[in-house]
Amino acid sequence: MKCVVEYPKDHPFPIQNLPYGSFYTAGDASSQRCGVAIGDYILDLQALSYTSHFSPTLDRDVFAVQPSLNAFMGLEKQTWLDFRTHLQQLLSQPSPLTLDATVAAADVEAGIAQRKHIGRRLFVDRLAQDTVLCLPCRIGDYTDFYSSLEHAYNCGVLIRGKENALQPNWRHLPVAYHGRASSIVPSGTPIHRPVGQILDKPGDTQPVIAPCRRLDFELEVGFRLSPAEAADRVFGAVLLNDWSARDIQTWEYVPLGPFLSKNFATTISPWIVPVHALEQFTCPGYDHQPPLLPYLQDGTNTNFDIPLTVALRPWESDEALDSGFAVISHSSLRHTYYTVRQMIAHHSTTGCPLNPGDLLGTGTLSAPGTEGYGSLLEMSHMGRRPFSVQSTVGEVQRTFLNDGDTVKMSGKATASNGEYAIGFGECVGTILPAVPM
Amino acid sequence: MKCVVEYPKDHPFPIQNLPYGSFYTAGDASSQRCGVAIGDYILDLQALSYTSHFSPTLDRDVFAVQPSLNAFMGLEKQTWLDFRTHLQQLLSQPSPLTLDATVAAADVEAGIAQRKHIGRRLFVDRLAQDTVLCLPCRIGDYTDFYSSLEHAYNCGVLIRGKENALQPNWRHLPVAYHGRASSIVPSGTPIHRPVGQILDKPGDTQPVIAPCRRLDFELEVGFRLSPAEAADRVFGAVLLNDWSARDIQTWEYVPLGPFLSKNFATTISPWIVPVHALEQFTCPGYDHQPPLLPYLQDGTNTNFDIPLTVALRPWESDEALDSGFAVISHSSLRHTYYTVRQMIAHHSTTGCPLNPGDLLGTGTLSAPGTEGYGSLLEMSHMGRRPFSVQSTVGEVQRTFLNDGDTVKMSGKATASNGEYAIGFGECVGTILPAVPM
Repeated sequence: MKCVVEYPKDHPFPIQNLPYGSFYTAGDASSQRCGVAIGDYILDLQALSYTSHFSPTLDRDVFAVQPSLNAFMGLEKQTWLDFRTHLQQLLSQPSPLTLDATVAAADVEAGIAQRKHIGRRLFVDRLAQDTVLCLPCRIGDYTDFYSSLEHAYNCGVLIRGKENALQPNWRHLPVAYHGRASSIVPSGTPIHRPVGQILDKPGDTQPVIAPCRRLDFELEVGFRLSPAEAADRVFGAVLLNDWSARDIQTWEYVPLGPFLSKNFATTISPWIVPVHALEQFTCPGYDHQPPLLPYLQDGTNTNFDIPLTVALRPWESDEALDSGFAVISHSSLRHTYYTVRQMIAHHSTTGCPLNPGDLLGTGTLSAPGTEGYGSLLEMSHMGRRPFSVQSTVGEVQRTFLNDGDTVKMSGKATASNGEYAIGFGECVGTILPAVPM
Repeated sequence: MKCVVEYPKDHPFPIQNLPYGSFYTAGDASSQRCGVAIGDYILDLQALSYTSHFSPTLDRDVFAVQPSLNAFMGLEKQTWLDFRTHLQQLLSQPSPLTLDATVAAADVEAGIAQRKHIGRRLFVDRLAQDTVLCLPCRIGDYTDFYSSLEHAYNCGVLIRGKENALQPNWRHLPVAYHGRASSIVPSGTPIHRPVGQILDKPGDTQPVIAPCRRLDFELEVGFRLSPAEAADRVFGAVLLNDWSARDIQTWEYVPLGPFLSKNFATTISPWIVPVHALEQFTCPGYDHQPPLLPYLQDGTNTNFDIPLTVALRPWESDEALDSGFAVISHSSLRHTYYTVRQMIAHHSTTGCPLNPGDLLGTGTLSAPGTEGYGSLLEMSHMGRRPFSVQSTVGEVQRTFLNDGDTVKMSGKATASNGEYAIGFGECVGTILPAVPM
């Protein structure tokens, strides 16, 4: 497919991807609207809805009125597929659209647009300074799973030793907890080091309140839900960094699970990659032994093999923020013991309402071996073994995150014909010092 | 204060209370609007906003346009107080309002109302068949604490014995977890028994999937938040029943806390009692030993002494649903070791965003002694000791809830002058059989 927009072969957002997002321009947050990423541009879906090029079968208001994607995500799978096909036709050559296409006087005459819309551009420069990417949709509820066997095992070994690494329930159900929807932020938002109760040293029984000393990331992928049933419920996926304050967590989590240690911030990448763009990368899922209960048996049992990386830019690096990153982990979305269909089947067993825009995190995705840890907890053996990271001024040591450190997660898979790639883009955050109490 | 509406002295909704809610009538859910409960009537705040009787200092759109309370809850404490004073003046004799007051032609002439509003009644019969009470506001996030010393101790004794009843962190911080906002329902909504993974018998290692056998309630109060700071953040309170599937919980909760065992339903009473109506019932809070860290020290350290009861109507009772209830617990909102201000201070330590409409549950409120257990887990000693409940056909035995059982929570305190009471109304739910898988 030759596209209206030009981009290199390894660009994460080719015409075969078309991830959805929400953005505004020119400093005007009230202009927030939906768009589709294509190369380094955004096709403005609100502006498109003002033209005769819009899909004849979709309600224009889904994009003309709505600032984010919930209304579109609330439609049926077939509607998404039809609209995706329409966009791919519109963006592939020969096309009535060019990069400088605008809303035309004829659109006003046709009764689609208003006079004030005339001249509005359909393509927006995604990388321009004045383009701000927002959360792609309102998130009603956010659930975080713990579905990577390797991560659960690694953590279990560090906490309880090899014999009892996995808890008795782990191989029978996808363990999960409810996260905090209000603290989810888009990639690029800086993260203040959280303050909380911690034990000053091992064996203490009286806590202190202090800035977290064991600030960690967690490499995850988040699935966005639609209202349909089971497998058809997944709208798309984003990268997700579940920032974690390990010392706050250790002290607070008994017996009801993590709370403040996780609710100060969760960063997601701003573009929702449609599940249909990921389907070409399906791979066999895990062998579930002992066998799962019938309601969790997944006939297809496939995962998505999307390579994921975590890069760290130590504060010591003295160059511009977009350089100085060292890749510290290579993992993949394939490392979930439970498939996303199993997560959804489990989540809805009791009748819990799932809504369009809800977010399901996979939990930390660690690969087998030592090169694909999804958290610093694992890389530093709970802080006991500092490891080296390359900075622009030489090697530096880390256990957990320092103020000024930047974490960047990326994900991208190359199509089997080698002609294009499907990527998530990036999920980035820099640690700021704790806010003084 | 002599009121426009007549009600008995012990009515939970006198002119000194004025709790806020959201409702619709005549089977038309699209007519959902805000109201204030006064005796057995609702003052329709949308209809009021169409008249010259509306507060001259409040934006009419807060009630003219909004179906629920989030916009009003997003305003300042002083605005709530001013509006409350205005309503009390409007409802006390002598008043321009009578029970049959309507939107008048003069309101249209004055440019406040539209012609179609003329004749709309300001007072709605709250108990009429066609009045439906909704959730009073959209709930962004729901946090459930574990703040009753007696409940935590009772559970600890049952699980770990007297020596280690309280976990090491319990007296240092208000333990909490994030609940599921999407499964909160208003009082009266029937609750299907949840289905989930449980262990069939003690010592089993292979779970089964089955309808929950240990279905429990939890007597709580929920505080509704506003955007202001600390103490001024609390808008009001509701009764809250945190339904719990104890057998699902036991199996799933390690290590991330309760998930499916709590997310099938949480019932709240439909009227938010303003915190200002509760303030006359303040009582000393708990003595915090060991002393709390400075950020948790509450200068005033007061709780609200609002007596709470749990009544159970066993399915065996052969009379109408509004009779046949036996009171099985007497507790009080005073039994929170941590005050609501401490819960909020802790919750926001890390910078977690709290929003108008957010809900904070106290956690199960158990009183000292054996007459005020807030859950069946405690009453039945984890199911080991069945107890007797009176039904209309004689005594019946219970450990956990049976299908057809109805749980009704109530809360009401009498003013020191004995002239009126402030109540929450009721929080009711009936257990329906599990939905077949």
